[in-house]
Amino acid sequence: MPRPPAHASRDGVQRGSIDAVLRTRYAGTRKLRLNYELVGAAMAPVVLVAGGISAHRHVAANAVDPSAGWAQGLLDAGRTLDPAKLRVLAFDYVGADGSIDAPIDTADQADAIALLLDALGVDVLAGYVGYSYGALVGLQLAVHHPQRLRKLVAVSGVHRPHPYAAAWRALQRKAVALGRLQCADEQGLSLARQFAMLSYRTPEEFAERFDAAPEVCNGQVRVAAEDYLDAAGAKFVARVSATAWLRLSESIDLHRVDPAQVGVPVSVIAVEGDRLVPMDDAVALIEGLAGRGRLRVLRSPYGHDAFLKETDRINALLASELFAGSAVTGPAIGVSA
Amino acid sequence: MPRPPAHASRDGVQRGSIDAVLRTRYAGTRKLRLNYELVGAAMAPVVLVAGGISAHRHVAANAVDPSAGWAQGLLDAGRTLDPAKLRVLAFDYVGADGSIDAPIDTADQADAIALLLDALGVDVLAGYVGYSYGALVGLQLAVHHPQRLRKLVAVSGVHRPHPYAAAWRALQRKAVALGRLQCADEQGLSLARQFAMLSYRTPEEFAERFDAAPEVCNGQVRVAAEDYLDAAGAKFVARVSATAWLRLSESIDLHRVDPAQVGVPVSVIAVEGDRLVPMDDAVALIEGLAGRGRLRVLRSPYGHDAFLKETDRINALLASELFAGSAVTGPAIGVSA
Repeated sequence: MPRPPAHASRDGVQRGSIDAVLRTRYAGTRKLRLNYELVGAAMAPVVLVAGGISAHRHVAANAVDPSAGWAQGLLDAGRTLDPAKLRVLAFDYVGADGSIDAPIDTADQADAIALLLDALGVDVLAGYVGYSYGALVGLQLAVHHPQRLRKLVAVSGVHRPHPYAAAWRALQRKAVALGRLQCADEQGLSLARQFAMLSYRTPEEFAERFDAAPEVCNGQVRVAAEDYLDAAGAKFVARVSATAWLRLSESIDLHRVDPAQVGVPVSVIAVEGDRLVPMDDAVALIEGLAGRGRLRVLRSPYGHDAFLKETDRINALLASELFAGSAVTGPAIGVSA
Repeated sequence: MPRPPAHASRDGVQRGSIDAVLRTRYAGTRKLRLNYELVGAAMAPVVLVAGGISAHRHVAANAVDPSAGWAQGLLDAGRTLDPAKLRVLAFDYVGADGSIDAPIDTADQADAIALLLDALGVDVLAGYVGYSYGALVGLQLAVHHPQRLRKLVAVSGVHRPHPYAAAWRALQRKAVALGRLQCADEQGLSLARQFAMLSYRTPEEFAERFDAAPEVCNGQVRVAAEDYLDAAGAKFVARVSATAWLRLSESIDLHRVDPAQVGVPVSVIAVEGDRLVPMDDAVALIEGLAGRGRLRVLRSPYGHDAFLKETDRINALLASELFAGSAVTGPAIGVSA
């Protein structure tokens, strides 16, 4: 199947790139190409959707690119993010192409979004839905460019990385480094991804799916989850470069936002059982936001990955949160719980 | 400092080895040397203490070997395990010397204990205190040799590995395999140990100890816990062989015991927040033990490692549990809560 074109426009779908010059915090001033997709009714309010470090501009299948996106189902007709009523913008993170081998700040990503909005002629986002890394970037946007968004929904991401989660990611990066020692980049990255999968999911899910006794084959013990983890590693390695992944992983750990500096209303959606973002930290963010924050809690066996797996429940939460507390209402939006 | 002698006897301390022939489940019939320490008053009842896969026969400093043991403080005067009142036996696990490069069953370890007791002329253990892997081995002893112990205290270890914990260990073993690809055994084992440390401790502890912002040095992000983790890895590599560690790690995942087959009273001590042994599994073990089990719950920021860190509280629990429900009482024991 041919790759979808980098630049295309069809049936309300605009896929393209803009050239930008970004002054980064750690990587100097860079000429960048920012890739985006903008999907939905012309002139409708724009909502930006940003996912985890492995996400990209293709949120869901559309007329230009019919392949499945990273949050397939979220933009269907009748959903809160219905492209018949809103325009949904998404972009590839700075560094996702592996072109920057230096630390990348979440605030750099927010600056890149501001440049992208300038180029697209979007003054202000009616809303910003950020999941995981996307939530961190959204908080930076709300600090550094508060005039560019009216409401932030931050899912499974807060103002700082938890020290335990940071240690977990640091060990993933060490797995890549160990692979690189012998030019086994792919094996290192695969192992890193497999470590990461344990942080994205929960013991409850593993207990349900992988309760079989281990096998002994070729004199070695192989536990029930290993096939699944190997497959997850291989799939990841096929589409992500080690450099891109390393630098975006680091970027999570560099992230720091003072909640008092957040300039827009924020709904924080926290998942009970998320092994990367403990509930305590979501509560601390809400406290720091003073009157500007609302907390919604989701219970899910999918932990940190709930945003990707619990589409119906996330959609329902977006319905009640995306425009709550912001001044944007009107017939073009028509959102209700 | 010279190594303490392999065989020695002084002031109530007997350190030695016995030769044994063990019919193993996966590794054939093996001639083995079983190393032990037996510490305490002659003729006193014997309690076996068995720790995690990295533990060994040297539980605490004694007259033959004044170096610190792996559970230093547990055998002091006035403790439940006071060598003035009991004899405390400990041994090196089968495979801990790296001589067996084949799967090792926890039931093999229990059989080895029976051979050791035969050689030492100990008919029956007044009690068995097992922590982590030691608890698994204790459960096997209670299934296969119930006449050799009167009471089992199983701390942070149950009848089966949790599938999520098994996956976690499998990835540690993959780290060793990745290192071995390039003869970087030590780097692989160090990474495995570091990843294991995250399973032994808790996010709460990391939040307290490693809350500092990361550093950027040589263009790479280094998080606050990395010095600690690197040191833990280096310390481990200096004293454990990769083969020994791999085979004992596998052994945890091979472990399966039917609680209904356990032939002696068991006190299960579970730690709330243990990331390897969830409370649900401790409860399932108690249910399976029917009337033969008691559950005691410990809350500790040290998670799976609570046994090693909460010496006072473990001592208090042993005081109430070690001889509860068993028929052994007498002036030589004199244990009370």
